[in-house]
Amino acid sequence: MSKSKKTFGVILSGCGHQDGAEIHEATLTLWAIHKNGADYQCFAPDIDQYHVLNHITGKEMDEHRNVLIEAARIARGDIQDLKNLDPDQLDGLVLPGGFGAAKNLCTYAFDGPDCTVNGDVARAIREMHKRQKPIGALCIAPVIVVRVLGDVTVTIGQDEGTAGNIAAMGGRHTATWQGEIAVDEKNRVVTTPCYMLPSRVDQIGEGADKVVQAMLRLMS
Amino acid sequence: MSKSKKTFGVILSGCGHQDGAEIHEATLTLWAIHKNGADYQCFAPDIDQYHVLNHITGKEMDEHRNVLIEAARIARGDIQDLKNLDPDQLDGLVLPGGFGAAKNLCTYAFDGPDCTVNGDVARAIREMHKRQKPIGALCIAPVIVVRVLGDVTVTIGQDEGTAGNIAAMGGRHTATWQGEIAVDEKNRVVTTPCYMLPSRVDQIGEGADKVVQAMLRLMS
Repeated sequence: MSKSKKTFGVILSGCGHQDGAEIHEATLTLWAIHKNGADYQCFAPDIDQYHVLNHITGKEMDEHRNVLIEAARIARGDIQDLKNLDPDQLDGLVLPGGFGAAKNLCTYAFDGPDCTVNGDVARAIREMHKRQKPIGALCIAPVIVVRVLGDVTVTIGQDEGTAGNIAAMGGRHTATWQGEIAVDEKNRVVTTPCYMLPSRVDQIGEGADKVVQAMLRLMS
Repeated sequence: MSKSKKTFGVILSGCGHQDGAEIHEATLTLWAIHKNGADYQCFAPDIDQYHVLNHITGKEMDEHRNVLIEAARIARGDIQDLKNLDPDQLDGLVLPGGFGAAKNLCTYAFDGPDCTVNGDVARAIREMHKRQKPIGALCIAPVIVVRVLGDVTVTIGQDEGTAGNIAAMGGRHTATWQGEIAVDEKNRVVTTPCYMLPSRVDQIGEGADKVVQAMLRLMS
């Protein structure tokens, strides 16, 4: 390995699965990185959330929240504007899921396979891939990686509609169950379904742990 | 054991460590409960947060947020008003930390050992204790348990000021390091310092896991 301790960039999309980053997936990604002896730096775009949802009723609230400021709740304040992400300073990149990935980091929730990806998110993925550094994505976030890179193999679990959209964007889908991962060795892309399937919290941890371990292997 | 699968009540105090529940502690409590084969039901009081802080700058934001609605982000919507907590339906009770525990569940952040505890929080702790059901508390949350029960042994890590306040409220303090727990066998109270000490995320998981395992032992 090039240095003893690896650093993962983690892109968050807010705080709460209906309008931001899925909290269990994000937290267990950070947990898995530390558990496996690596470090992380969190990032988020400094933009407004698409909307704010009451997580009990699912109804829109008359509020505006900023993705970077809300994501800082998960990162305990240690977070940087995604604009400042330097791919040369990172060994790998992870995108946890939640609707924030599909609403704030790209427009997949509204436009499906015709979605556009936030410019800084696309740049981060493209520059890491160009440097042959591994990229991990959880839950719905693999659709972003496919939209940016095209012909990569990912998993979002078992959902046929999403799998069809992945194919429409030029990607390939591998079906998986809870806690399993898909590894595209050539493109160094590692994905796991998390809450795209009904899951217990320890299964989210299992998936995140396997993603981080596979990424560490691909870094060496 | 009285039934095969145990159910933990988890009291959340918002979503984000500066003004609500500490997200890693809360998530890893839920993870530990599932990991050890039990189930949980989340609760939070239906009250306004004391304030809303920007988690990057630490400055107050001109907003109002509701503890129950924000806590639902961690609970993925499956949360009940703390008023509805029925101690006969639960096998144990856990309080994760974060400043929300000291600002929203009680007034410890402002009044120290003279703090008052939210009535529904106090009732939940008192009724579980009366039934000899175990109570777990992480980070700063042990001060709430001491304020309600008085003569119990807890840990908040190494902080002498907080340990002094625990004594002033009639409790006893045991010093611990990262990932360690204190068990008051007689009162069935289990505590761990979490982010009361500088900690890596996997150490938060280790502490939460030990708390849940000790509580399960005390239930049997």
